[in-house]
Amino acid sequence: MPQLALPTIAFAMGDPAGISPELAAKLLNMDEIRLAARLVVFGDERILREGAKVAGVPLDVTVVRSPEEGEGAGLGNLLLVDLNNLHPDEVVPATATHAGGRFAVENFRRALLFTKAGQADAVFFTPFNKAAMRMAYPSYDDEIRFVNDVLGQAFPASEFNVLDRLWNARVTSHVPLADVAARITREAILRALRLTDSCMRAAGFERPRIAVAGLNPHAGDGGNFGREEIDVIGPAVQAAAHDDVSVEGPFPSDTVFLRAKAGQFDAVLTMYHDQGQIAMKLMGFDRGVTLLGCYPFPICTPAHGTAYDIAGRGVAHVGASREALRLAIRMAARAGGSEPDARAAG
Amino acid sequence: MPQLALPTIAFAMGDPAGISPELAAKLLNMDEIRLAARLVVFGDERILREGAKVAGVPLDVTVVRSPEEGEGAGLGNLLLVDLNNLHPDEVVPATATHAGGRFAVENFRRALLFTKAGQADAVFFTPFNKAAMRMAYPSYDDEIRFVNDVLGQAFPASEFNVLDRLWNARVTSHVPLADVAARITREAILRALRLTDSCMRAAGFERPRIAVAGLNPHAGDGGNFGREEIDVIGPAVQAAAHDDVSVEGPFPSDTVFLRAKAGQFDAVLTMYHDQGQIAMKLMGFDRGVTLLGCYPFPICTPAHGTAYDIAGRGVAHVGASREALRLAIRMAARAGGSEPDARAAG
Repeated sequence: MPQLALPTIAFAMGDPAGISPELAAKLLNMDEIRLAARLVVFGDERILREGAKVAGVPLDVTVVRSPEEGEGAGLGNLLLVDLNNLHPDEVVPATATHAGGRFAVENFRRALLFTKAGQADAVFFTPFNKAAMRMAYPSYDDEIRFVNDVLGQAFPASEFNVLDRLWNARVTSHVPLADVAARITREAILRALRLTDSCMRAAGFERPRIAVAGLNPHAGDGGNFGREEIDVIGPAVQAAAHDDVSVEGPFPSDTVFLRAKAGQFDAVLTMYHDQGQIAMKLMGFDRGVTLLGCYPFPICTPAHGTAYDIAGRGVAHVGASREALRLAIRMAARAGGSEPDARAAG
Repeated sequence: MPQLALPTIAFAMGDPAGISPELAAKLLNMDEIRLAARLVVFGDERILREGAKVAGVPLDVTVVRSPEEGEGAGLGNLLLVDLNNLHPDEVVPATATHAGGRFAVENFRRALLFTKAGQADAVFFTPFNKAAMRMAYPSYDDEIRFVNDVLGQAFPASEFNVLDRLWNARVTSHVPLADVAARITREAILRALRLTDSCMRAAGFERPRIAVAGLNPHAGDGGNFGREEIDVIGPAVQAAAHDDVSVEGPFPSDTVFLRAKAGQFDAVLTMYHDQGQIAMKLMGFDRGVTLLGCYPFPICTPAHGTAYDIAGRGVAHVGASREALRLAIRMAARAGGSEPDARAAG
């Protein structure tokens, strides 16, 4: 039987001032991860060693100065490309700094370009701090924008939140609530439904069952509390269903997640950020994954942030990061054909 | 030791076409309820007997034609004031009808007036169907409006959702999402905070710890995704804190409930309906209670609806109704001074 190649994951170290370094060290020390993938970490060896110290775990990685150096045989499945880009003295614990942002931005960019060049199958990163990212990269709006910048192409990408087998996509995201209703158009909903459907198929769902949340309380209560469900969302759902997307709704947003949790749906499309985030975080804050989907390769990270409040204490839960890395590995393996049995990567 | 009088609860039968009749029968058959309060049920004996049949429970009530008749001695703690106001043949299962709405409206009105007259200490009702209520009472907007109509006074009342010990109040409720932001004013938030504080004190909280949710994603992310947190919500929170309300925020709405669930707060004030409802229903759909607070007496009902989809099958969970009735009893007992040990009725 031929040996199937393990997928390669480009692993970018995130913000150095929170829990990212200790999460990285913990992940790199897990047998289940080391046996399932080849990992190429982009970051600084000194920061990673600090993380291992905080986490109280050993650090057994092969350090190289460039990915090319790592191409040599017999170097093992765990490489750290030491960019030598942040001295521990520059780290101000629990503080967003220009140096920290520059570090995370560079690691992420290198991981993306490495993967774009075909040298890895997926990207994973430990949490960023948006304020620090903006100090180092002023046009940093969110990850989607940054990835498009780095890849040099405006992919029609979308951010998904994944919890166990349940996916959540949204029509609008980081916009003021006052602007949400005006952005709920038939086109925006259709686009989101098609992206969700195609992304989830790529992730292994044969025909993902998507539920659509309403915008208004009680999904508008038959038009009494808003008409978007009748005038916009319903017709968009019907149009998508006509295109062979398995979709139902709109449903009241305060019960649709109960149904999804019970297994009736594989995904919920929400109209705005908190509609989905409130539910997903309540259902599994310690396991939630953010997936940037519909790029040529999957990009995964834990859904939580840098947790400055518990930085340096060694108490960070690694669960969501492990789930994110596992999702990246499963999706990469599927794309590479080395996990033929998985119906779904969610 | 003197015998403390049990509180009296006016119990209004709700919509007859869903699970309300079986819930009523189940509740009236529970020893824990029968031992804790005197119940005066307003409805129709035939409908209640149908409910008992569906629920598969016996019905052991004293039937009277008017509350006055029930004033006689030795009639026991469980009276049904049979208004003879709905024949079972008029009930169309799982359908909102004028007859069903008229029935529920009349029962609720009678229970309210009975309690207003000082003959009961609190009101409880099984679920209504809003569409049916509107058929029978065209200006039926929501319960608050109706109660004010019946009581003949515009009380500054508020709807609370209560789950175990956690309360949720909101600044806006049954309005289209497009209209929410414009209604988030300093005055509206301050009013809601004061109502929540005074209502919870009346319910037994010495000094309720209230968390306030932001309006925008990430509570506006420092103004990047909306400025209401900086310009409106924050100042309102500070003004309330200055008035000796124990209040903190605004917090991102996708994590504030995690903190409340962990016991850090007694209440969360949300800016709009689904922000709280998504969380409360996910945390305990089977136990959630709706309380109409800041009236001269508490009015409680389960947070769920008439569940037409499972009507007549005898499978309805009575948990939320039991919690609602227990909250009514606790608040009534506290108002009457017969439950001196309870710090909190939540």
